[in-house]
Amino acid sequence: MNQMQQLLIIKIGGNVIDQPEALKAFLDDYAPIAGQKILIHGGGKIATDILRALGIEAQMIDGRRITDKETLKVVTMVYGGLINKTIVSGLQARGCNAIGLTGADANVIAAKKRADKNIDYGFVGDVEQVNAEAIIQFLDSGLTPIFAPLTHDGKGAMLNTNADTIAAALASALCKHYETRLIYCFDKKGVLASADEDAVISQLNLAQYSDLKAQGIVTKGLLPKLDNAFAMLQAGVHAVTLCHAAQIQHAIKGDLVVGTTLILE
Amino acid sequence: MNQMQQLLIIKIGGNVIDQPEALKAFLDDYAPIAGQKILIHGGGKIATDILRALGIEAQMIDGRRITDKETLKVVTMVYGGLINKTIVSGLQARGCNAIGLTGADANVIAAKKRADKNIDYGFVGDVEQVNAEAIIQFLDSGLTPIFAPLTHDGKGAMLNTNADTIAAALASALCKHYETRLIYCFDKKGVLASADEDAVISQLNLAQYSDLKAQGIVTKGLLPKLDNAFAMLQAGVHAVTLCHAAQIQHAIKGDLVVGTTLILE
Repeated sequence: MNQMQQLLIIKIGGNVIDQPEALKAFLDDYAPIAGQKILIHGGGKIATDILRALGIEAQMIDGRRITDKETLKVVTMVYGGLINKTIVSGLQARGCNAIGLTGADANVIAAKKRADKNIDYGFVGDVEQVNAEAIIQFLDSGLTPIFAPLTHDGKGAMLNTNADTIAAALASALCKHYETRLIYCFDKKGVLASADEDAVISQLNLAQYSDLKAQGIVTKGLLPKLDNAFAMLQAGVHAVTLCHAAQIQHAIKGDLVVGTTLILE
Repeated sequence: MNQMQQLLIIKIGGNVIDQPEALKAFLDDYAPIAGQKILIHGGGKIATDILRALGIEAQMIDGRRITDKETLKVVTMVYGGLINKTIVSGLQARGCNAIGLTGADANVIAAKKRADKNIDYGFVGDVEQVNAEAIIQFLDSGLTPIFAPLTHDGKGAMLNTNADTIAAALASALCKHYETRLIYCFDKKGVLASADEDAVISQLNLAQYSDLKAQGIVTKGLLPKLDNAFAMLQAGVHAVTLCHAAQIQHAIKGDLVVGTTLILE
């Protein structure tokens, strides 16, 4: 097998998107990164603010917004319009040839409306198919795809899809074509060994992760992210790192002092 | 010179976008059109409704919205997010491989913030450069670009740009590469010879247009559209037609009974 090209996938969330200064600093760091790269952004709290201003009550179950028809319109506007184009125009200004995408655009991510017999999540999509060929074409054209956390059902409906899930689906699909590295930026410096914000575990393998889970050291909110991350490594993703967005310049250098890098063994 | 490929550019406005049934009917007609095609959509009144709901007063001068910072956010959301993705997902459902674009995406349309010594239009952009190469690449990949009426200034700001103007800029730039036909869908069946809605002038040349202007028969709102259209023909656009969106299936067959087709002489 030939040496594969490298691909860097970064996911950013609310702690970057919701703070204009943090977003600018991130874009300053992200734009000059050489090589093929993809960015996925979450929704942040702007949609919640707009929903409130429009008098639409936000309903949450297990940390997920219930996406009724009116909420879907607002998240499509905010995620696919405002946030996505703010990032795209910001990257263009920094010399990075970005292109904003939802799952519907060029049919890059097809999803299925979630069917749950207990809870009606509304217009929430579970990823069914990543169109790797279309994404590879964009990358080959020198474009940097910027994904909003939105997919579509192929029947005309947009669907609200968790940004972490989109990042995982993209990494899993593209790791067959690239040596793929995924960096999840979140509000901590990495997986912490204690309540000390600086007690970052720099490397974590599956056995150590099981121990940390058993000891109750890994916080509950982090479990799905880490479970997914190990599943991705098993599926062939080269490396998964969790760190703070402000550390991204160090993280891409593979500096093990920064963030938590997950390894299988 | 080799025979050029054909390209069909269609622009739709508020009378399609603002009515879900009219939009569905249009997408039913548009999706199966064979060959390379581009769609440009206007903003419609949804943005005005959202601005009002958010308590942002819409300011208009000469039929153009004054785009302050808050208004820019709303039009970026509504045009680039809600309307664009509604159309893209609707076309995907109909088997048309659509991709939504603003001028910022892949830097397809660079613009300059309008400088007017008398009026501050705010974040309104005049088109400076169409990146024909990027658009041709999308078309060659079998994609149908769907343009929102938004451009960017290359310095990080999105700009509000009239959809008719974007259609004209695209047609003028792409007619060097394709035999380009432009169809403006609007709320009439064509240019009318009288107050009778059915008195459509099926063919109009520059001399006849001058006569109609002199006689005051062409309504004021239509003058910029027609002036631009004749300028495009002179720039090398193959044909420009004005018709109602409901007539699009007939218009693309080049049926002269439908709409008004402009010719130079």
